[in-house]
This record gives sequence, structure tokens and C-alpha cells, in this order.
Amino acid sequence: MSDQAAAPRKTTVSPMLSVRNGAKAVQFYQAAFGAEVLFELQEGGSVVAQLSVAGAEFWLADESPEHGNFSPESIAGSTVRLILVVENPDAVYAKAVATGAKEVWPVDDQPYGWRVGRIVDPFGHHWEIGRPL
Amino acid sequence: MSDQAAAPRKTTVSPMLSVRNGAKAVQFYQAAFGAEVLFELQEGGSVVAQLSVAGAEFWLADESPEHGNFSPESIAGSTVRLILVVENPDAVYAKAVATGAKEVWPVDDQPYGWRVGRIVDPFGHHWEIGRPL
Repeated sequence: MSDQAAAPRKTTVSPMLSVRNGAKAVQFYQAAFGAEVLFELQEGGSVVAQLSVAGAEFWLADESPEHGNFSPESIAGSTVRLILVVENPDAVYAKAVATGAKEVWPVDDQPYGWRVGRIVDPFGHHWEIGRPL
Repeated sequence: MSDQAAAPRKTTVSPMLSVRNGAKAVQFYQAAFGAEVLFELQEGGSVVAQLSVAGAEFWLADESPEHGNFSPESIAGSTVRLILVVENPDAVYAKAVATGAKEVWPVDDQPYGWRVGRIVDPFGHHWEIGRPL
């Protein structure tokens, strides 16, 4: 075993988004955010995928209400929003909207010291796209 | 401006959990996961906080349904689960349960190559605590 393999694992926390139509969601995040697919498992019409936006990783999976995994479409709201920090929020926001996300509020300088805007994607997940000023 | 300040910002994606009683949630995540508070804003009984579990960052905030931020208690389910990757899933899982989280399924080796278990915390958010084998 190499020293590297023996090193303690880095602690990470990543969101796993429940969606209807995981295959379409993968395509959307690729187009909207330039996401790369790091891992994808398709089984019986269901998708589990790990995506990376310039190294920022998240997961998505088809919802399975029987296991407590609800899409925002199924329970009419979302319980976790995603804070996407990028170099150029205006450009990333504009591309997401052009790709099919809806504006919630536009990118602007906020009194709490961030330049940030909010969208909701076609699967009902909310994203705040910004950066600290 | 230093070279460092001029360097492009690293892209990150962090979950922002909507909860009832943000102040209690901060205490829970400190006790259950050993989270540190990186940032906390209290205003009119509402809390926004940024937490770090050994460098893994996430946010929480009191829910505000009028702004589309619903706690799992308000819409009877959660739309994003949190994948917490740690060196020792068994220990982290056991401590979370001892601190008040409920077991959904225990930590075990899964056929997809992870050792992982699932809990639901007192605020209705679901966590899969594990690591790749």
C-alpha cells in the first residue's frame, strides 16, 4: 500500500438532487453549466450520476418516493438550494437561463457582500449563482 | 492586487439546507458531526450559517416559504440528500444517531462499492454517510 492510499480520506459533503427524468437532467446540467459526467449508472430507466462543474461535484438520481427521495415536482417545493460559486456569475446565470432555467431574481450586488442571482432549473431545483465581492 | 487575488476563483457547489429553528440546527450539526461555524448571521430570529465538517462546507438557513425555501417539515419530504464522505462512516453514523438522528438504514458494504448508511436528522434532512471501498 502506498503512503497516498494510507492517507486519511478527505471529508466531503455533496448534494444528491432527486429529479424526474434523470437522463434529461444530466443533459440539462451539461448544457447549462458545462458539467462533466464523472459517473453514470442506468438501471431500469433510472439514472444515478455524479457530475462536476469545473471540479465542483454533485450527484443526481431519479426520484424514488418509496425510499424517501422526492423530486421538487412531487412535493411542490425544494428543501435544499444549491450555492454555486463561480468566477463570473453573470455569464453562468445568463447561460443557464438561455438553456431553460427560469429567473427567480437577477444577478446583482447584495448588501451581504455577494454578487449573486437565483434561478430555478427545469427540474425544480433552485440555484444561487454568485461569488463573494 | 496580489497575484493570488487576481487568480480565477475556484468553482464550488454547496448545499444550503432549509430548516425550522436554524439556531438549534447549528447546535445539532456541531454536536453530531463536529461542525465548525464559519459564518453566522442572526436577524429577527432567523439564522443563516455556513458550517464546515473537517473542511467540507455547507450552509443552513431558517426556512422562508414566501421565498421558495421550504424545510422538510413543511413539505413532508426532502428533495436533496447529502452525501457525507468520511474516513470512518461507522463512527460518524453512530455519533449522529447518539445525538438524535434517526436510522434509515445502517452502515453496510453496498453492492455498488461503497460502505454507507443513511440517517434522517431532527430537521428532516437525509444524510448518506459513507466512503467508496
